[in-house]
Amino acid sequence: MKVELVTNVLDANTAIAEQNRQFFAAKGVFVLNLMSAPGAGKTTILEKTIEALKDQIRIGVIEGDICTTRDAERIAALGIPAVQINTDGACHLDANMILRSLQNLSLEDLDLLVIENVGNLVCPAEFDLGEHYKAMVISVTEGNDKPTKYPLMFKESQAILVNKLDLLPYTDFSLEVLKQDLETLNPQAQVFPISARTGEGVVAWSQWLVELASSIKSK
Amino acid sequence: MKVELVTNVLDANTAIAEQNRQFFAAKGVFVLNLMSAPGAGKTTILEKTIEALKDQIRIGVIEGDICTTRDAERIAALGIPAVQINTDGACHLDANMILRSLQNLSLEDLDLLVIENVGNLVCPAEFDLGEHYKAMVISVTEGNDKPTKYPLMFKESQAILVNKLDLLPYTDFSLEVLKQDLETLNPQAQVFPISARTGEGVVAWSQWLVELASSIKSK
Repeated sequence: MKVELVTNVLDANTAIAEQNRQFFAAKGVFVLNLMSAPGAGKTTILEKTIEALKDQIRIGVIEGDICTTRDAERIAALGIPAVQINTDGACHLDANMILRSLQNLSLEDLDLLVIENVGNLVCPAEFDLGEHYKAMVISVTEGNDKPTKYPLMFKESQAILVNKLDLLPYTDFSLEVLKQDLETLNPQAQVFPISARTGEGVVAWSQWLVELASSIKSK
Repeated sequence: MKVELVTNVLDANTAIAEQNRQFFAAKGVFVLNLMSAPGAGKTTILEKTIEALKDQIRIGVIEGDICTTRDAERIAALGIPAVQINTDGACHLDANMILRSLQNLSLEDLDLLVIENVGNLVCPAEFDLGEHYKAMVISVTEGNDKPTKYPLMFKESQAILVNKLDLLPYTDFSLEVLKQDLETLNPQAQVFPISARTGEGVVAWSQWLVELASSIKSK
């Protein structure tokens, strides 16, 4: 009975997600669903990405959060359109939340829309929002066991950002072990080692986003 | 309708949790529900706690995980009874999972039972398992905004372990800011700065657990 219900919720979600995706395509906006555990550095990465790209492409952000608007304020401070979704306790965004938030964004004025999901390695990966690509952040301080323990998000993500590289010398994390795990879980994933704090790796990741944003324009 | 369902699920959960709690009290076992974001260091803290305490009190562990038995194997390697609950995708443990797992544990042989919840800062805090106390781990690498962004877990926890102290000099984390936030959210919480890696702070935390375990015996 519980499984039944989850199936229905996911079916309804998928239908709305498909509608969102068609709407994004019609407007020529590339949409990225950015996920991670709490504290992995999604918002700081976004700040650095915006600084790197804001003279090249037009970026907008939807911020998912359980109860604060702190992250959206950080983004808005950079002069970027930012919409806040407060999930009021829910541990993930869903397609309907995105649909409702779109009335507060002028998609015509955007090339790239980043949806920053709620900090959670589990549920966000199960809910299609209508995005084109998913990306996730794993920080080196979280340890090497995360792909095995939370496989769905690692499987579903087109890009995996390995953040807090500046702390790598002080941890036991191995980038090689991560890459080996991904060979089984998700060999197509693009891996971007990055330090949002020092800026290392931000250029390669930002350039990847620019290419995606132009690919959808040319369709 | 969605809210209705959640209420019903939580009501049913609370009833089973109360039953678990009475069962634990009858057996004289103190039960701790240990929660955190993925990668904050719950299992490593548990390993160090077991090493510190295994000659003083009898400890058992229930490991909640989405799909692996890796953490339970780490605990069992220390010669401690360890039961694995695989949630098969679910992002938190519930009281019924605990009830079913208890047939694999001899509670008569334990003073302290630690339930390591699924790595997630959101949902585990909403589900009473029948534990006596909740504790949570926040690592200094996760940043200072976590209490504001995930208030429920910080409110519900009797103990807050601040882990990865050895990395503090390389981060912007402030223990003072955390303590200020807790003055509003949860002034009664015991705060334990700790480094599971170096062992710093493990004694104070372990001693607190010993006192809790003896307090329930004397009731």
